[in-house]
Amino acid sequence: MDAQLINPFIKATLNVLETMAFTKPKPQKPFLKRDFIAKGDVSSVIGLSGESKGTISITFTEPCILSIVSNMFGENMPKLDDEVMDAVGEIANMISGQARQELEVKGKVLYAAVPTMIKGKDHTISHKTTAPIVAVPFGTDYGDFTIEVCFED
Amino acid sequence: MDAQLINPFIKATLNVLETMAFTKPKPQKPFLKRDFIAKGDVSSVIGLSGESKGTISITFTEPCILSIVSNMFGENMPKLDDEVMDAVGEIANMISGQARQELEVKGKVLYAAVPTMIKGKDHTISHKTTAPIVAVPFGTDYGDFTIEVCFED
Repeated sequence: MDAQLINPFIKATLNVLETMAFTKPKPQKPFLKRDFIAKGDVSSVIGLSGESKGTISITFTEPCILSIVSNMFGENMPKLDDEVMDAVGEIANMISGQARQELEVKGKVLYAAVPTMIKGKDHTISHKTTAPIVAVPFGTDYGDFTIEVCFED
Repeated sequence: MDAQLINPFIKATLNVLETMAFTKPKPQKPFLKRDFIAKGDVSSVIGLSGESKGTISITFTEPCILSIVSNMFGENMPKLDDEVMDAVGEIANMISGQARQELEVKGKVLYAAVPTMIKGKDHTISHKTTAPIVAVPFGTDYGDFTIEVCFED
């Protein structure tokens, strides 16, 4: 997978979190996920199909997502309730939507499935593919999150 | 979502587990997921798109999936290692593939995304959709698992 495919997801992540949650996460260097396992407390996964088959997932630590969603809602959200979980799916949806729009302009049309949200202390995420999986960790003042993207060309 | 759409997933689940893992799970009555939350230790999620946008997830307790994968491999698999997690994705892939094949015969064409696998004690799964989500619990001698299917028509 080349940078042309991962960059729209990084750009969309920064844009969605800045406009929706006034949060400016710092992206770290993208890397190929081999032994790395994204671990966190809350994730959202969106399947992609169309010209390629793939998936995008985003995994947050609890303090990180609570701070982001509190900013989004303009009120303190102290626990991982249904409203917060719904917001996680919405964030993933917006990132996937903006990234797919940019990829479509570049000629790559992808369709998104319904987002799934996962809640569970220290869960891990993996993807069943032989294609490279690119992971991008982001830092915020309240903790880290990671996006993972893969496409089977 | 009508029964025509959920039945192929139930049939595929029974068929895959019987042929691959010599396991005959007992399906319970499908129901609309409202307050119900699938909770388990291992899940796989596959996004669906095409004529409808949807998702299928399957969530197992640890003893249940370890018994199923031990049967599949013909050797005792005592813990949730990478091989077991890969098998979980493969089981979900086969169920999705067989169900989609049957739906295609009925005139509904769906494309599957790359399966994602989740590992984490007592995690919960939800889906971001306004469409009905149908849950089907299955019992086995070693514990329970649940499949969840939704489509946005």
